[in-house]
Amino acid sequence: MKYYVGIDFGGTGIKIGIIDESGKILIKDSFDTDPHKRGEEIVQHIAECTQKVMDDSGLPQEQILGVGIGSPGLLNPETGQLKVVVNVPNLNDVFITKILSDILGKPAFLDNDVNAMSLGEFYYGAGKGMKNVIAMTLGTGVGGGIILNGELYRGSTFTAGELGHMSIDRDGKSCPCGNSGCLERYIGRDGIIERFMIARNKGFDTNIEKYLDKGKITPKAIVQAAEAGDELSVKVLEETGEILGSALATLVNALNPEAVIIGGGIANAGDLILEPARKTMLRLAYSIPAKVVRVLKAELGNDAGLVGSASLVVANLS
Amino acid sequence: MKYYVGIDFGGTGIKIGIIDESGKILIKDSFDTDPHKRGEEIVQHIAECTQKVMDDSGLPQEQILGVGIGSPGLLNPETGQLKVVVNVPNLNDVFITKILSDILGKPAFLDNDVNAMSLGEFYYGAGKGMKNVIAMTLGTGVGGGIILNGELYRGSTFTAGELGHMSIDRDGKSCPCGNSGCLERYIGRDGIIERFMIARNKGFDTNIEKYLDKGKITPKAIVQAAEAGDELSVKVLEETGEILGSALATLVNALNPEAVIIGGGIANAGDLILEPARKTMLRLAYSIPAKVVRVLKAELGNDAGLVGSASLVVANLS
Repeated sequence: MKYYVGIDFGGTGIKIGIIDESGKILIKDSFDTDPHKRGEEIVQHIAECTQKVMDDSGLPQEQILGVGIGSPGLLNPETGQLKVVVNVPNLNDVFITKILSDILGKPAFLDNDVNAMSLGEFYYGAGKGMKNVIAMTLGTGVGGGIILNGELYRGSTFTAGELGHMSIDRDGKSCPCGNSGCLERYIGRDGIIERFMIARNKGFDTNIEKYLDKGKITPKAIVQAAEAGDELSVKVLEETGEILGSALATLVNALNPEAVIIGGGIANAGDLILEPARKTMLRLAYSIPAKVVRVLKAELGNDAGLVGSASLVVANLS
Repeated sequence: MKYYVGIDFGGTGIKIGIIDESGKILIKDSFDTDPHKRGEEIVQHIAECTQKVMDDSGLPQEQILGVGIGSPGLLNPETGQLKVVVNVPNLNDVFITKILSDILGKPAFLDNDVNAMSLGEFYYGAGKGMKNVIAMTLGTGVGGGIILNGELYRGSTFTAGELGHMSIDRDGKSCPCGNSGCLERYIGRDGIIERFMIARNKGFDTNIEKYLDKGKITPKAIVQAAEAGDELSVKVLEETGEILGSALATLVNALNPEAVIIGGGIANAGDLILEPARKTMLRLAYSIPAKVVRVLKAELGNDAGLVGSASLVVANLS
């Protein structure tokens, strides 16, 4: 049996776990890091936490083949260098895989969190057994990972997959990225809330009050209200699915994948979003690629980060 | 020295040529086919024409490694079967590579004309030496070919690359394909003419009359008028470039290529379209991928079909 370590690096909080060849998590733990320490010290601490999890697992150490780190921000997966870590600037420019690998005596691999999640779904989740898969995360932002011919496609400067910044309307809402009509502006967290508020201000009835988070409208509250039958919430999520489906039509025409896998917090709405997305994609995309592609909910849920990070080892060693 | 045969199958007209390892055309000829004959007879005729070109070339036959066919319409590159050949329905469902290969005694490979052209530019044209290249053809329609990690990406049902049917405005012009706001509707042949006519009907001055084709406005006439300084024509091509650039921003964000290569008849406008396309893409795409990507004019011109078809052999045998 082979085992793989995943480090899901989420800024100051870190989750570390070990999966087996079937993607099952055998052990996991979480740790804090001190963002005010020097970058190398932070990585040394991560290495110690990783060693602790490996020791605690009781697994034969030589069967643990490597360590994968999924991180937000800009980074170079080929050199293993973090470039811009927004929440922990002391890590900027640190060669994290070199340090981890030296301390732990195992190969270490780095990639961005969305690519890691995509690989996790590809090996162990909704994309198992497929060759061409597009993964999208719907959360605060909208991210993407592209797996083609069985391999993660990173692009020429490792920035491929910015699917939240596909423009779906070149005269549409301006986006902080500099473009107009970016998908993220409509179906990212703020886009969904904005569409809800506009509709409510037009006078549509809603029972959302019961579900608010400290008085605030959130996508989670909208999903909960929709599940309880709130019509406006259902409508806003349906529209979210339709906008998503329209973007999927473009992706399906361009990349002809076997599946599009939708993850991230907002994907918890499930078929409230995915069913209108499927219908819209089927209506708008070319029929040959549209008929084969499946629009699936991500399967790994809260463990997507961990399993995905560990999957980086699988991808790099196979 | 190795040689490759290209068959550029354009419906009833066929061009056949042989290239060497540098992509240079050593011999070429063109032939007509009779669309009313049975499919297999048509292919037998194509094989005879191909044998004639090989004989005429005087090249050592054993150094001619194979035959590539680029064809419009629906087809299956893996089985070598034509599926829907719009201009020659008698060829529908014919296994063209099997027949050609049996008669000529050499391996034969089939792909769609845009994929063939993309491979031609990749091996011997504007994309030489690169790994990740997107090719677009601007003509009656807008087509695309995607080469990633040094290989043509065909997708799960061999329909990848339909870049003319990326939606750039989900509430935009409806397209015969069923979608709305397809790129092709704005910068395909009819889209360009339509935008020209709308502007002229608004009262803008133009000298296009001198360049009309049998009294009709064509993209070629617009390009010629623009080259002679006609302001409205320049403006329409500039807008064409801006719309193209906006779509390129989406592609650059999603696929992070080294180059986008623009071919097809309308690409003859050159920098009248490409310069505004570059500027718009640079303004709208993420800066990291935008800074590296080059927006280039296709280099193979009228020989793109021949060299591209021959490139199918190179791609399949290497």
